[in-house]
Amino acid sequence: MDDIKQSLQKVFHHEIPLSREIGISVVDYKSTSLTLQAPLDRNINHKSTAFGGSLYSVAVLSGWGLLYLLLQKQGLSGHIVIHESQVKYHRPVRGDILSTATIELGANLQRFIKLFERSGKARINVHAQIFFESELAVDFHGQYVVHK
Amino acid sequence: MDDIKQSLQKVFHHEIPLSREIGISVVDYKSTSLTLQAPLDRNINHKSTAFGGSLYSVAVLSGWGLLYLLLQKQGLSGHIVIHESQVKYHRPVRGDILSTATIELGANLQRFIKLFERSGKARINVHAQIFFESELAVDFHGQYVVHK
Repeated sequence: MDDIKQSLQKVFHHEIPLSREIGISVVDYKSTSLTLQAPLDRNINHKSTAFGGSLYSVAVLSGWGLLYLLLQKQGLSGHIVIHESQVKYHRPVRGDILSTATIELGANLQRFIKLFERSGKARINVHAQIFFESELAVDFHGQYVVHK
Repeated sequence: MDDIKQSLQKVFHHEIPLSREIGISVVDYKSTSLTLQAPLDRNINHKSTAFGGSLYSVAVLSGWGLLYLLLQKQGLSGHIVIHESQVKYHRPVRGDILSTATIELGANLQRFIKLFERSGKARINVHAQIFFESELAVDFHGQYVVHK
């Protein structure tokens, strides 16, 4: 488990240099969810809260990382790119950023895997949320495209 | 004109430290549009294209900066925060990121200013686009809240 977290963190830092500046670390992984963290001080804005672009970056990477691990688990490999997203900022984040991405197992995932195997390209939705002091701060819906 | 651009760039670098890592610079300003730039090398991903989180950050800051200058021009001051956004990634950006935010003058803007002056809080939509090699690469719609 710790191996998976460490290797994903290396993937981020190696493949997306800005993720080092943001200070991304992998804190939790289950088969249907992934939580990333980034410190407030590197991502702070003029109001002493987390910058909207940093919140977005941590959310989009949590979705990307979850799909990366999901493909790996299924023995598949592909390029994962964000295709579109909707984000709502409900309240400011006045501390470290913790984004948890989740994906539904079941029929949708099976359909995604089948389509990807057959055509070499498929889309999938990931939901990520950032909470601060137990309240929802950022709600992120991302549609990713995975292609061979 | 160059003074405005330089002073806005200082605002970004001072108030949002990550904007320095992203390499934000202000390249063009008209009363209804603002263009920001960021170099590819600082924002690159594993596919040698611009990272989705960087593209988003440049877009959201172009909208923020345009509103900042708009308020300043109207003799108003307020806190500008992103409230929600929708982003579509149409094609990869294989070079420097150039985001142009635009705002419509006219009735909507007048309504925004009146509401802000009367109640101390108002919402406004900004549209930002990133082109690469003359083709639309990223389409960003952001709703910002400005409050006293």
